[in-house]
Amino acid sequence: MHRRLAQWPILHLVTSSPIEAGHDANIALPKQRVRRQDESVRDCTAVPPTYPETTVMTDEQLLKLREYMDLNDIEAYIIPSEDAHQSEYIAEADERRLFVSGFDGSAGLAIVTTNRAAVWVDGRYFLQAKMQLDCNWVSQEIGEPNVPSPADWLLAESTDEGLGASLSSGAKVGFDPTLLSISTYFSYNETFEASDRGIMLQSIEDNLVDRIWVDMEGEKPAYPGDELLILEHEYTGRTWEEKIFDTSAGYDTIRELMAEKDADALVVTKLDEIAWIFNLRGADIPYNPMFISYAIIETDAIKLYLYDMTTRAVQEIEDHLKQGSCTPTANCITIKDYDAFLGDLEDIGSTKKVWHSDTGSYAIYERVAEDNRIMEASPILLMKARKNPTEMEGLRQACKKDSISLCELFGWIQEKVDAMTDEQATTGDLTYLSELIIEDEAYKVRERWGHEFTGHSFKSISAFAEHGAIIHYSSSETTDVPVTKQGTYMLDSGSQFKDGTTDITRTLHYGTPTAFEKEAYTRVLMGHIDLVNTNFRSGVYGRDIDAIAREPLWSNGLDYRHGTGHGIGHFLNVHEGPINIGNYPGEQPMQTGVFLSDEPGYYEDGSFGIRLENDMIVVDAVTDHSFSTYEYMTFEMISLVPFDPNLIDFTMLSPAQLEWYNVYTERVRNEIGPALSDRARNWMERNTYPIEYTFTVNSGSTEPLSVLMTATCLIISVRLLNLY
Amino acid sequence: MHRRLAQWPILHLVTSSPIEAGHDANIALPKQRVRRQDESVRDCTAVPPTYPETTVMTDEQLLKLREYMDLNDIEAYIIPSEDAHQSEYIAEADERRLFVSGFDGSAGLAIVTTNRAAVWVDGRYFLQAKMQLDCNWVSQEIGEPNVPSPADWLLAESTDEGLGASLSSGAKVGFDPTLLSISTYFSYNETFEASDRGIMLQSIEDNLVDRIWVDMEGEKPAYPGDELLILEHEYTGRTWEEKIFDTSAGYDTIRELMAEKDADALVVTKLDEIAWIFNLRGADIPYNPMFISYAIIETDAIKLYLYDMTTRAVQEIEDHLKQGSCTPTANCITIKDYDAFLGDLEDIGSTKKVWHSDTGSYAIYERVAEDNRIMEASPILLMKARKNPTEMEGLRQACKKDSISLCELFGWIQEKVDAMTDEQATTGDLTYLSELIIEDEAYKVRERWGHEFTGHSFKSISAFAEHGAIIHYSSSETTDVPVTKQGTYMLDSGSQFKDGTTDITRTLHYGTPTAFEKEAYTRVLMGHIDLVNTNFRSGVYGRDIDAIAREPLWSNGLDYRHGTGHGIGHFLNVHEGPINIGNYPGEQPMQTGVFLSDEPGYYEDGSFGIRLENDMIVVDAVTDHSFSTYEYMTFEMISLVPFDPNLIDFTMLSPAQLEWYNVYTERVRNEIGPALSDRARNWMERNTYPIEYTFTVNSGSTEPLSVLMTATCLIISVRLLNLY
Repeated sequence: MHRRLAQWPILHLVTSSPIEAGHDANIALPKQRVRRQDESVRDCTAVPPTYPETTVMTDEQLLKLREYMDLNDIEAYIIPSEDAHQSEYIAEADERRLFVSGFDGSAGLAIVTTNRAAVWVDGRYFLQAKMQLDCNWVSQEIGEPNVPSPADWLLAESTDEGLGASLSSGAKVGFDPTLLSISTYFSYNETFEASDRGIMLQSIEDNLVDRIWVDMEGEKPAYPGDELLILEHEYTGRTWEEKIFDTSAGYDTIRELMAEKDADALVVTKLDEIAWIFNLRGADIPYNPMFISYAIIETDAIKLYLYDMTTRAVQEIEDHLKQGSCTPTANCITIKDYDAFLGDLEDIGSTKKVWHSDTGSYAIYERVAEDNRIMEASPILLMKARKNPTEMEGLRQACKKDSISLCELFGWIQEKVDAMTDEQATTGDLTYLSELIIEDEAYKVRERWGHEFTGHSFKSISAFAEHGAIIHYSSSETTDVPVTKQGTYMLDSGSQFKDGTTDITRTLHYGTPTAFEKEAYTRVLMGHIDLVNTNFRSGVYGRDIDAIAREPLWSNGLDYRHGTGHGIGHFLNVHEGPINIGNYPGEQPMQTGVFLSDEPGYYEDGSFGIRLENDMIVVDAVTDHSFSTYEYMTFEMISLVPFDPNLIDFTMLSPAQLEWYNVYTERVRNEIGPALSDRARNWMERNTYPIEYTFTVNSGSTEPLSVLMTATCLIISVRLLNLY
Repeated sequence: MHRRLAQWPILHLVTSSPIEAGHDANIALPKQRVRRQDESVRDCTAVPPTYPETTVMTDEQLLKLREYMDLNDIEAYIIPSEDAHQSEYIAEADERRLFVSGFDGSAGLAIVTTNRAAVWVDGRYFLQAKMQLDCNWVSQEIGEPNVPSPADWLLAESTDEGLGASLSSGAKVGFDPTLLSISTYFSYNETFEASDRGIMLQSIEDNLVDRIWVDMEGEKPAYPGDELLILEHEYTGRTWEEKIFDTSAGYDTIRELMAEKDADALVVTKLDEIAWIFNLRGADIPYNPMFISYAIIETDAIKLYLYDMTTRAVQEIEDHLKQGSCTPTANCITIKDYDAFLGDLEDIGSTKKVWHSDTGSYAIYERVAEDNRIMEASPILLMKARKNPTEMEGLRQACKKDSISLCELFGWIQEKVDAMTDEQATTGDLTYLSELIIEDEAYKVRERWGHEFTGHSFKSISAFAEHGAIIHYSSSETTDVPVTKQGTYMLDSGSQFKDGTTDITRTLHYGTPTAFEKEAYTRVLMGHIDLVNTNFRSGVYGRDIDAIAREPLWSNGLDYRHGTGHGIGHFLNVHEGPINIGNYPGEQPMQTGVFLSDEPGYYEDGSFGIRLENDMIVVDAVTDHSFSTYEYMTFEMISLVPFDPNLIDFTMLSPAQLEWYNVYTERVRNEIGPALSDRARNWMERNTYPIEYTFTVNSGSTEPLSVLMTATCLIISVRLLNLY
């Protein structure tokens, strides 16, 4: 699954956090090109406006919201997509923008003024927004010409350019301080202060959308708040004590890092960071095993603020966290109610030095006295990113399980493809084999792992032909199409296993690919191989090796508009910083133990999409030399699923790429093969045959060497043939 | 020739300008390891101290300087290496640090306090500094443990850590505002303001070193101030009018760029920028065809401030510059005296918006009213870096001439090597073949081009064996060693031709290289080839493709601690920004027309050094596809000198690398061969024989393709054999 290149200007409008970059992961990417009869859109020029069935009427929401705005003396109200923890995925309880506008895209900021309303949507959702929004709403299509940023739009709304100003000079723009990140707050401020309109942000504690939600529906959905899962030491390899204060395991502890910054307290707001610190998991957020919470780690106390504390702070959890039962008490965890967090922070922030990140909410910033603020990136970021040996072994096992499941899936598909009627193979049969049918099966093949599998790590991208060119395509009843032999099929899916998170993409063609599809696939594979084959040294950033995966595409005028790889959590988020492969803000240099995806691609808008994604771990490289004090590193590939030889022009590969390919397919046969059903093994073996090649060099003056080379190549070929 | 990676922390201490990065190009690199009897150093512990003949006594300089310091009420005085134009190379008249300290390294900042004196020297000069400085001076070895930055040292000197404070609290530190760059000024200030010592910088118009220079020697050297050279249109391809205001040629003009910034005036201080704008060259600075000058381009005037105006503003120059003879007068150039610059700037800066760069001197900053400052990088940087078709053709011709000269040189060396006695081949003969003998010959082979050749573009690096590991080694009477068959020999040299500047490095071995030398050379060659073979797209920075040249070295634990390539001027500086290949500050994305070096290397401290450097132009790439709105680019290699097959393990090369090698050596034979003497051609042909190789892939399902491949490879081999 993809994370968008942060260098795209639009990102800074939406978020400044690399973690969130995946959230709106293909803003300004090719628009979804689905032409289906039932996809009519609103007509706001008609009198009265005409709407498709998909439209949500929002007169009442807006009427009520504007009443509350008036009561609070504000002329505009910002409704972000994010929750209070700036999560990439959010719970139903936080779908405020959906409730007020009816637009249910995964990204999209809404702003309501006294007489206008607008939603900023990215390329994935241009069509969907027009199908769901009623005529109260302007759909601001991010990346299109003359589409202003939300802050610029608010300014324009307060001037004549706003075609009938809806904001007065000096107007107050309201927002919920728990939902707006500090960095976003300052970016709005910067724009407002650069103008002479006197527009200013106004923090409003009470969330106005929640108010109308309750008014209209009696109550608003709660977080699931199920029991918490204690992740045993066999999975984590490191106790929460070792993460916070116990140095006996030899790791840096959070309190040691706090001491380096003279911080008395560290505020942890990211849900994956809290889950990691305390070795706990939950299910409040779809796809991410998180639980709604905050934590404050002080030099003399540890406080964990749990949503639905009464259900969750059961004896088992209290024992795991040694609630109040340890000495010194500085090392006890005090479980408190989620709602007590801000109050406690205000007390602490008034007297102690508090370390918090600018990705945290403005509500946190507000509660720490100016002199006590240490606003820097969270130290947990890197601690969490560098997996320990237990986590690494878990990730290997998780990837192995996912690889087995995918071989079973592709074996199942192949069987259906082989049994296709001519009609099913050409025009296709939505009831026989389709994007959604495969998406469902992709879940079933994983369910077989029982309790070890807790769900997908993101919504699968099951995309046939032109849908594959929509990088973050999401198939639905309205977009589903049959999978036939007439195009490429791409599946990007991942799992949450207790021993690790996975993310893998394969693209296949069940008929005869075009020469261009084959060239694109081969070049993507070449980049995929070159990257995993790369060595690099300490001090190198992911950005510095990104070009190695792109070069085979650049060399014939191709490229892809997303990063080459993203950090992946250990039974946590499928996107995690601070190390990725590409140009992201706030990056840190490559480090051993980091878990990354390798996913170059190529997308031909309206025609086909190719992406090949495996997961890998950064490990020490074995080299004959070791120049200077550098540490030399490379990647260990741990996803083991065949590529599609039907889409590969092997004559384009170099000997090094061919050697890697043969070793990889051999690993698939040896490490995955034994666990497969006959059906899956047949498919796997049909797609992992070794490639014979010979490469001989006769440098004239070095006759013996050339003979040696010939011999070597022949030996390789023979060895591979024997294996087969 | 090399430019050091700007990411090395030490850089910011010395300079913040990428252009200057080459100046101290191997700070913190392996120390010069020359063990010769006559290299005794000072002994400051002896009473009285003992000195080698190389030491310069500075009692008088320091006595006089401190008198002037006292008169000016300052307790310390900063003496930078740079001239008023932050030039990479400086004229004798600007060798103030040398005059006051006796240390003649190409880089090194001096600071004198009331009772102490220190010079900051980099790894090239640790030994030399101890040979030249008397015991009045502390040699601050940059990059060594506990060596403070100049600003930190001044702070320490004003506290107890200073072991007997030499600065009082609140002391004033004097400097010449024309010699300290704005960015350096602010970095000192930042350090001082962060302390409570109240130390502050004090601008002193009158240069104190110049004062004592005149006091002691009656006068100080003047700039050469020879006649200026008018570079004809056949060389420049673009008139100064087209550069400043005439849009008819279709180029952006300086005044158009000024208008975009609402600038009324642009201050040009870099000598290469002034030479480029006015199509004039001079000889005031060694290796760089510059003339001491300033320029101010206003919306309604153009002013050129010439040193030694009377000699230089001859009729021919006035005609070229249309001195006062054009209409509208806004397009006339007014030639004024160099000394009038600051006064004029003060007048202009009091009323007009003035655009100047922070690499300019503090004297400029001082003279522009705060509200009128537009402090941004000079627009000339990129205009000058993107060569026009005439300049590109000139560079091709310049590189061809230099390649011919180098083949002649290496043919001459080979003849001497072939005639070596056993003793000359092993222990060596300083009078028969040495670093300096070859360095002299490297000049002679270029002199044959007559007036077209105006001199070297930098001091040649002629380095045998372990000297090659000293990246910016400079051979001298004291360091010269014989060149034998017992080690690698590296020559890094370049020319200033009227049609272009060149910079090329070759490494050879006249005996039997070690396996490690051969592996290192081959990996450097692989990186060199991979870089020039790379395609990339618009928006990509030099930093992004740097790793492509390093990967063959990284893959076995090797690397080099300098950039991979630097911008080169057109009959201008051998180092120019704003586009390089590596991690430099203030970089701009790759653009067609930029002239760059490709020079990976490997340096085994105390043993050998390898660098392979060619020059290339960024050109449009020919691709079958063109994804998105990107422009796809690649490199055109224009240096044509054989590599040393004796140092290449061809079996390590990929088919793509072998193909490039064969095409390149074929180009050398065809494009350079006809112009060579028999001796040079013999050497060239011995080192450009084609390499036969076959690469066949049998992907099973694609039998025909594999046959095709075999055929192709055989054809290639045969073709190349025929050529030979």
